[in-house]
Amino acid sequence: MCQLLGMNANTPTDVMFSFTGLATRADEHKDGFGIAFFEDKGLRLFVDPASAIDSPVADMVRRYPIKSGNVIAHIRKATQGHVALENCHPFVRELWGRYWVFAHNGDLKDFYPRLHGAFRPVGSTDSERAFCWLMQELAKAHASVPNVGELSTTLRELLPLLRAHGSFNMLLSNGQALWAHGATQLHWLQRQHPFRPATLADEDLSVDFAALTSPADRVAVVATQPLTTGEAWQAIAPGELKVFVDGAPRG
Amino acid sequence: MCQLLGMNANTPTDVMFSFTGLATRADEHKDGFGIAFFEDKGLRLFVDPASAIDSPVADMVRRYPIKSGNVIAHIRKATQGHVALENCHPFVRELWGRYWVFAHNGDLKDFYPRLHGAFRPVGSTDSERAFCWLMQELAKAHASVPNVGELSTTLRELLPLLRAHGSFNMLLSNGQALWAHGATQLHWLQRQHPFRPATLADEDLSVDFAALTSPADRVAVVATQPLTTGEAWQAIAPGELKVFVDGAPRG
Repeated sequence: MCQLLGMNANTPTDVMFSFTGLATRADEHKDGFGIAFFEDKGLRLFVDPASAIDSPVADMVRRYPIKSGNVIAHIRKATQGHVALENCHPFVRELWGRYWVFAHNGDLKDFYPRLHGAFRPVGSTDSERAFCWLMQELAKAHASVPNVGELSTTLRELLPLLRAHGSFNMLLSNGQALWAHGATQLHWLQRQHPFRPATLADEDLSVDFAALTSPADRVAVVATQPLTTGEAWQAIAPGELKVFVDGAPRG
Repeated sequence: MCQLLGMNANTPTDVMFSFTGLATRADEHKDGFGIAFFEDKGLRLFVDPASAIDSPVADMVRRYPIKSGNVIAHIRKATQGHVALENCHPFVRELWGRYWVFAHNGDLKDFYPRLHGAFRPVGSTDSERAFCWLMQELAKAHASVPNVGELSTTLRELLPLLRAHGSFNMLLSNGQALWAHGATQLHWLQRQHPFRPATLADEDLSVDFAALTSPADRVAVVATQPLTTGEAWQAIAPGELKVFVDGAPRG
């Protein structure tokens, strides 16, 4: 089972990731990982087909406090596509002068959409095909970058077409918002001042917001499974699209 | 002055970069750096608007032997575009199911091409505008990914149009070849077995091929200035496009 993790904050936030647990049971998620950090319109993408136990890239991400307003991370257990750098999530494309970042957890059966636009998969995963199709359809639906509300409306029309092919838990961001589409399992949580200490439910994948101190700071976290106990995680329903802007759910 | 460095090899090669000298005169290249490594069709891109003296990303790249067949690196001294993550070279786009990586050293005056295709700049540099225009024109010239010879022919038609706007030292790769376009200064070197020890001419930016031992190994290196003394670096003439495949110049 792949793991997804997303973060959307109203202030660029020091995020540090922990992969502690993965080091001891890396065989479960041995097929690579990736993390994308938006800094305004700019993007840092770290991907590695190596297990998080061995990867110098994972080691750097663990120790490097990157300030970001939107983060998408993915730990891969290969279902389709061999283990290779080009098959690591998140995937990135540019549209309308914005980078778009996409990660998927699930399995689309016999999904070979007609890709007649400007977006083609580099690797061999169902996930990247789905991303290219989404980008193609967004590009057809709008002449230039629309606002978050309009984008959400278009996504709500497109996503059921993907969901018809199988399980489609998805995170998407263009640096302005974080979109989270639920299928089988996806949870979210909002944290605000005062930030209380939380107990990790699972040390596989965690995120540390210790640097957050300002009363105005607000952050939303989305994860496959709740990362902590004692906090009000909510499930995203199958077929539901949640949109997070400035650390809060919208609409 | 920005610095470019490219590598093309016939076997995925352990490359380690050294930024030693930069640490002592970081004010000359304080505006960020970036390195892209192809692994087959997959790509790792490390960019940082911080100086190589401070950056944990640079620190990781220094210590991490990444096996790659095509590498493009860039140390930035901002001329156009403010210092920001989205203005760091190399830039990446996808075309025909291949990633394309581009880095530029020079200055294009009043270059605002008509971008009516699928490629728009995210940042504000002349370099990214030139890259988007090149991708747009390549996409118009070929229906799917052509061979290296055909691509080189198309590039030789397009590059003079960019050169007319100013200085355009450029490195471009799609993982199959490395294209190097000379303007004011760009040099190249081929290394083959037996690999002799070379003396660094400048410790700003260097690349270590110590891991190369097989007699069949062959690697071409392109750099703004010769990186070593005692080796047969050759200048790329103004307006010349060199193409490197499998560690050797072609045509």
